[in-house]
Amino acid sequence: MPLNFYYGSGSPFAWRVWLALEHKSIPYEFKLISFSAGDTMKPEFLAMNPRHKVPVISEGDFSLYESAAILEYLDEQYPASDASKALLPKDTRQRALARRMACEVDNYLSPAVGRLGRQYWFTPEAERNTAQIAKDREIYVEELKFFEKEIRGDGLAGPLTLADFTLYPAIGQLLRMEAKKDPSINVAGMLGPKLTAWRRRIETLPYFEKCVPPHWKA
Amino acid sequence: MPLNFYYGSGSPFAWRVWLALEHKSIPYEFKLISFSAGDTMKPEFLAMNPRHKVPVISEGDFSLYESAAILEYLDEQYPASDASKALLPKDTRQRALARRMACEVDNYLSPAVGRLGRQYWFTPEAERNTAQIAKDREIYVEELKFFEKEIRGDGLAGPLTLADFTLYPAIGQLLRMEAKKDPSINVAGMLGPKLTAWRRRIETLPYFEKCVPPHWKA
Repeated sequence: MPLNFYYGSGSPFAWRVWLALEHKSIPYEFKLISFSAGDTMKPEFLAMNPRHKVPVISEGDFSLYESAAILEYLDEQYPASDASKALLPKDTRQRALARRMACEVDNYLSPAVGRLGRQYWFTPEAERNTAQIAKDREIYVEELKFFEKEIRGDGLAGPLTLADFTLYPAIGQLLRMEAKKDPSINVAGMLGPKLTAWRRRIETLPYFEKCVPPHWKA
Repeated sequence: MPLNFYYGSGSPFAWRVWLALEHKSIPYEFKLISFSAGDTMKPEFLAMNPRHKVPVISEGDFSLYESAAILEYLDEQYPASDASKALLPKDTRQRALARRMACEVDNYLSPAVGRLGRQYWFTPEAERNTAQIAKDREIYVEELKFFEKEIRGDGLAGPLTLADFTLYPAIGQLLRMEAKKDPSINVAGMLGPKLTAWRRRIETLPYFEKCVPPHWKA
């Protein structure tokens, strides 16, 4: 049964899953969703995700949304033949650490990056909430310092895990805002030496370029 | 090695873990943290959780925070002898559904309940943001309707799982705000028949009373 992967360009949550599918070499049908065409509001999409968001995966009658749940599902349903292709290590405590870090991205960094995105992409410059922007910029600077201290190896939790695929797209979003909207976001200047090396490792993964949001490449 | 459980009364995140420990009959040392005494800012606590929040668990040198990661850890580290004591079912797709629902509580209902809490408990009545309160009340009403439609059995995902222990404390928070601050929150009136029966099942679990926030019982 083919696995369908419903993706929308620019969503950091869908990006996580794309990286994970490629990392694990899981065969999938790529279903590009158009936000502007209202694809997520169509009945066939709402039947899979009433919250009308990407990512969604489906296999026959089974469908699943919420990116954190999808990553866990992929790792259970498609066990890696090779430990380097797993999204979670075998060791229970390392697994816990990877999940803790993914939760921290979701609970602290991602909300701040999401709010910045709404300001930079969807709010006319004159109407932007500069106090909120300043606050969210403080958060991402603090969070990047936090992960600089916390990173344990090639990946955040030691080996490469779902924590890395959860963190990178948030940083990718900041890089995009920096390139298109506000150079002072200065992601490179905010990454310490360990995260700089980590970023290079992620960006040179053989499948990295393939998973860059398509409309960013245009 | 004893498992230490650091708990703060009133935290819905710590409540989840307490319910899970009891559900799984895991022996633990209960460590009551006092927010007002600044326990979470003490160096020995910060060494376990630099984000100075509960819950935290520790076993010897190993410590873990982020309630969603703790629930997964407990289920892996303390495999249930009896399927009814697991936090996640055996079936991969049912596990995915339970995790999806727990994510949905974390991403939609909990933030709204958290904001309501900050308004009702920590903001003098004359200074409350009534527009924000109205918006968050709409969210919890919608979310409770959502789970009324989505519940699959005795528990949200079929059997009782971590999804139930994630949802209940958010509802518990609303019940407390209703009792102490604003009767119009009217949780019972917002629960459909399925969630009403579910609530009764949770509240009659043999360990439920034990896990009610201690300062609520005083």
